[in-house]
Amino acid sequence: MKVFVAGLGLIGGSYAEGLTKKGYEVYGYNRTKQSETIALDRGYIQKAGLEYLTLSDVVILGFYPQLNVEFVKTHLNLFRPGQIVTDVAGTKVEMIPQIESILPEGVIYVSHHPMAGRETSGIEHANYHMFKGANYLITPSRRSTPEAIEIIRQIGKDLSFKKITIIEPIRHDELIGFTSQLPHAMAVALVNSDRYEETSSFTGDSFRDLTRIAMINEVLWTELFFENKSILIDEIQQFELELDKIKKALNENDKDALAKLFIQSTKKRSTF
Amino acid sequence: MKVFVAGLGLIGGSYAEGLTKKGYEVYGYNRTKQSETIALDRGYIQKAGLEYLTLSDVVILGFYPQLNVEFVKTHLNLFRPGQIVTDVAGTKVEMIPQIESILPEGVIYVSHHPMAGRETSGIEHANYHMFKGANYLITPSRRSTPEAIEIIRQIGKDLSFKKITIIEPIRHDELIGFTSQLPHAMAVALVNSDRYEETSSFTGDSFRDLTRIAMINEVLWTELFFENKSILIDEIQQFELELDKIKKALNENDKDALAKLFIQSTKKRSTF
Repeated sequence: MKVFVAGLGLIGGSYAEGLTKKGYEVYGYNRTKQSETIALDRGYIQKAGLEYLTLSDVVILGFYPQLNVEFVKTHLNLFRPGQIVTDVAGTKVEMIPQIESILPEGVIYVSHHPMAGRETSGIEHANYHMFKGANYLITPSRRSTPEAIEIIRQIGKDLSFKKITIIEPIRHDELIGFTSQLPHAMAVALVNSDRYEETSSFTGDSFRDLTRIAMINEVLWTELFFENKSILIDEIQQFELELDKIKKALNENDKDALAKLFIQSTKKRSTF
Repeated sequence: MKVFVAGLGLIGGSYAEGLTKKGYEVYGYNRTKQSETIALDRGYIQKAGLEYLTLSDVVILGFYPQLNVEFVKTHLNLFRPGQIVTDVAGTKVEMIPQIESILPEGVIYVSHHPMAGRETSGIEHANYHMFKGANYLITPSRRSTPEAIEIIRQIGKDLSFKKITIIEPIRHDELIGFTSQLPHAMAVALVNSDRYEETSSFTGDSFRDLTRIAMINEVLWTELFFENKSILIDEIQQFELELDKIKKALNENDKDALAKLFIQSTKKRSTF
């Protein structure tokens, strides 16, 4: 099977590497030619160049959400009926209808989201082993077909993802808002609320675990937050309501209420 | 040097184990005799019984804050002038003056806090290797002497703590409120705000890291939160102000403001 990876960054580069290792014929494109050279030198792709998009069975869009839309818009003439287009973007609800409304007739579209990443970016750091044990989410939409969903699922299996889940785009974005974006917002706010000089003498493992993700790629995450804005605001508010319960228990000297919140979280966390 | 450990739990037991290994003569006491038996069987202590408190040079109170106060109050007659009393409690401002006001004249007191722990409790899980690389905070107060502070520092060195810091009790509690209690409150609130059934398919490393501490000993942490109540409430409010900045940037469609918050947290976190 011929696969075309548009955008040879950390994730796109790792897809190209892993799929080549699994016997796919992989082609690629990147705006900066340096990343294409690395991909060719390392044997992640066989050829670089937009002309290979037209020849491919599957096209993987490896950009940030709105850049995926831009890329499709700019290169409409390269897609052909029967091709399967997918993407690896971290938010779906805003992006999917935009892409589906412009793709030429007959082109199939199945969006998915590999839940893996690093604190680094760029093909220099690509390594398909990062997918091992990670979650892989497929978000079928209007232009998806059962056969195409199976091909996207097989790509996830071939890249060694652990758990492959099929989920509605809206539900995907809600859960990403809760399990990924909210924690990033919390970590950023925690670090930014530091008013002390001695913090580093006090940071135990839990503080370091909690704040590791406060080191954040501001270009990517600004886009991801805004793509999922209303859901994320709602998740932040739900979280604040729970935090207020802790504050309320303290303010009202209600030890039982506080202990109950701790028992609830202990029980719930043990199911994750 | 003769050391008496009152309260042979996870931390007290690990102190007894480590100090015995370093050549101290260690005695101990626990309300439930089963823990004393384990400490004797494993060679953590030479003898068990309150009578050894009077014979010891250093007394380590290994209970929760208010239980330390209770223990001193109940056993006032066992302490003798010249002895050094310390404790391993996680909050200081409320507890220290209570203990200092009741200890018999001539007894020296130097409080400290080993920043180590496990999600488990009890001497069964004791293991002094948990102190390796951890922070050790000494909080001198009215009844501390320079010589006694040095002895408490040496105990920290002998237990292989990495960084030993001397800090005022109030500053200690502020920093513990920020670096330990606030993250625990956040983790609890995050887990308790979960409204989804599919969460476990979406939990990446960052979510698991962030919520690990939501599995929490409700008896200990309820006491620790209330011992540090006003400081913790203040820290939660500071954190909420920072979270509101993120919400505000989203609501006002201010991408630059959001990116700036990310750049700030990335820069700050890299100094921890």
